[in-house]
Amino acid sequence: MSVKKIKHVTIVGVGLLGGSAALAMKAHDPSVQVAGVGRRQVSLDAALDVGAIDTAHFDPAECVGKSDLVILATPVGAFERHLKAAAGALGRNTLVTDVGSTKVKVARLARRILGPGGPFVGSHPMAGSEQKGVRFSRADLFVGASCIVTPTSDTRPEAVDTIEAFWKTLGMRVVRRSPAAHDRAVARISHLPHVLASLMMLLPGNNDLEVSASGFRDVTRLASGDPEMWRDILLTNRGAVLAALDKFSTETAKLRDLIDQGDGAAIEKFLARSKKRRDTKIVSQIVDRRISAE
Amino acid sequence: MSVKKIKHVTIVGVGLLGGSAALAMKAHDPSVQVAGVGRRQVSLDAALDVGAIDTAHFDPAECVGKSDLVILATPVGAFERHLKAAAGALGRNTLVTDVGSTKVKVARLARRILGPGGPFVGSHPMAGSEQKGVRFSRADLFVGASCIVTPTSDTRPEAVDTIEAFWKTLGMRVVRRSPAAHDRAVARISHLPHVLASLMMLLPGNNDLEVSASGFRDVTRLASGDPEMWRDILLTNRGAVLAALDKFSTETAKLRDLIDQGDGAAIEKFLARSKKRRDTKIVSQIVDRRISAE
Repeated sequence: MSVKKIKHVTIVGVGLLGGSAALAMKAHDPSVQVAGVGRRQVSLDAALDVGAIDTAHFDPAECVGKSDLVILATPVGAFERHLKAAAGALGRNTLVTDVGSTKVKVARLARRILGPGGPFVGSHPMAGSEQKGVRFSRADLFVGASCIVTPTSDTRPEAVDTIEAFWKTLGMRVVRRSPAAHDRAVARISHLPHVLASLMMLLPGNNDLEVSASGFRDVTRLASGDPEMWRDILLTNRGAVLAALDKFSTETAKLRDLIDQGDGAAIEKFLARSKKRRDTKIVSQIVDRRISAE
Repeated sequence: MSVKKIKHVTIVGVGLLGGSAALAMKAHDPSVQVAGVGRRQVSLDAALDVGAIDTAHFDPAECVGKSDLVILATPVGAFERHLKAAAGALGRNTLVTDVGSTKVKVARLARRILGPGGPFVGSHPMAGSEQKGVRFSRADLFVGASCIVTPTSDTRPEAVDTIEAFWKTLGMRVVRRSPAAHDRAVARISHLPHVLASLMMLLPGNNDLEVSASGFRDVTRLASGDPEMWRDILLTNRGAVLAALDKFSTETAKLRDLIDQGDGAAIEKFLARSKKRRDTKIVSQIVDRRISAE
C-alpha cells in the first residue's frame, strides 16, 4: 500500500463537516496547513476564529495548487461549480475527495471535469448532526463512525489507499463500496429515513404536538436537517431513493392489512422481528464502536 | 377542586412504568405504601428489591381494598382480566387509573366492568423508554413530561381532580383530553411513528446496516420497544392508527411525485416546512421543559 503524506489541505465549504475535518487533522498533526474556501466572509471568519483554517479564500484556484488534498464539503449541488473552478489549478499530485451523501452522480461529475483516472476518490463520512455551521465543529466528530470510500474502476489504487488512510487517521472505520452500492445503501439507512422523519413531523396538529414526548423527538430528529443540503441529496440520489420508498410503501401496505384485520399474532411477529434486528445489529454495534473509540 | 390524599396504592404490573411511578411516589412522600401485583415471582422480587413496592401479590383482590388508588400498568390487553379480578374487592373510595397508551377501548372496558360514573379515570403518562422491567425504574422518569388524563362525560369531577393532582405531584404537566381526542393524537405522535420505525428497521440489508450511523439509530429507536405491549396498542387503537397511516401514505405519495419529477424548489419547501415545525414546536418545547423541570 502506497500512502501519500498530507501536509496541506484545501477545504471547500467550511461548515460542520469541513470544519470538523480540519480540527481533526490539526489534532492529529498540528503542522498540517488548512486553506478554507467559502462563499461568505462571515463563515470564513468563523472558521478562522475557531482555528479550523489557516487561510481564507473565495476562489479554490488560489490555494489548491499547493494542496496534497482538496475536500469538497459544500452541499452536493455546488460541487460542479467548485470542481470547475479548481480543475485548472490543481497540483500534479493533488488528490480530491468530498464528504457528500450521494456518489454515482458525483463520481460521474468528477470524471467529466477532472478526467478518467483523475485525482478524485469519493468519500462519505457517516457522521454529522442536524446542527449547521463551523461553530459546531468538533475534532472528534468522526471518531468511531464509518466512512464509505467509493472508488470506480479507473481510480488509481494509490489514490484510494491515501484517501482511506486519511480517514483512518481521523478515527474512522473505513468501508469500500462502489458508488452504486453506496447510493443504494444510504437511500435505505439515511435518505428514506430523512424523508419519513420530515413527513412524520408534518402529520400531527399543534394540539397533538403539545403532548408529544421523547419518542417523537427522536424519530423526527432528522427533520431538523438543512433543507438545501437534503434537497440536493434527494435530487442526486433520486433513483435509489424512489426504489427504497416504493419498497417501503409495499411493506407498509402489508402491515396495514394486518392491523386492519386485527391479526395480533402477525403484528407481534413483525414487531418482534424488527426489534430483534435492531437489538442485534444496531444496539450491539453502538456498544462495539463505543468500546473501539475509547 | 376537591383532591383526595393518596396514602396506599396498588400497582398492577411492576415494570418500568409501574416501578417508576412507585419510586416517584415514595420520593415525594416516603410514608406512601405500595402493593405490587404481578404474574411472576421474579418480577415481584425485583420490585421489592429496588424498593418500589412494600408488599407483593399475584391477585389484586388481596390489596385493592385498602388502596386509595389502583394503577393498571400492564400491557393494555391484560386490563380486562385485572379489572375483573379487582372489581369486587375495591374500597368504597378507591380510584382506578392506568398508564396505557390507548383510551377509547380502555374507558369502555372500565365502564362495563366498574359501572358508569365508577372509580375509573384514564391516564397516559407520556414517558418511558424502550427499556423493559422494574430494574430500569427511575423516580424522575415522569418529571417534566406530559400526562394526558381522559375523563368521560360521566366521570366524577373530584375523581378527575384527584388523578390530575396525583400526576402533578410526580412532576408531570397534565393535559385533559377526551378518550377519542387522545387516541387520535397518540396515533399521530406515537403509534404511527412506532410502526414506521419498525418498518424502517427491516428495509436495509445487513451490508447496509454495517455503515449506518446515529441518524438511523435514532430514527429507529422506537423499534426496540416491547412487541407484546405494542401489539396491544395497535389492536386497541386500530381505527386511529389506520386513519393516521392512510393520511401518511397520501402525503408520502405526493412527496414521491415531487422527487420523481426532480422538483427541487418544491422538495426544499417541504423540507424547510418540516424543519421549521420541528425547530419551533419540538426543539423549543424540549428547552422549555428542561427549564421548568430544573
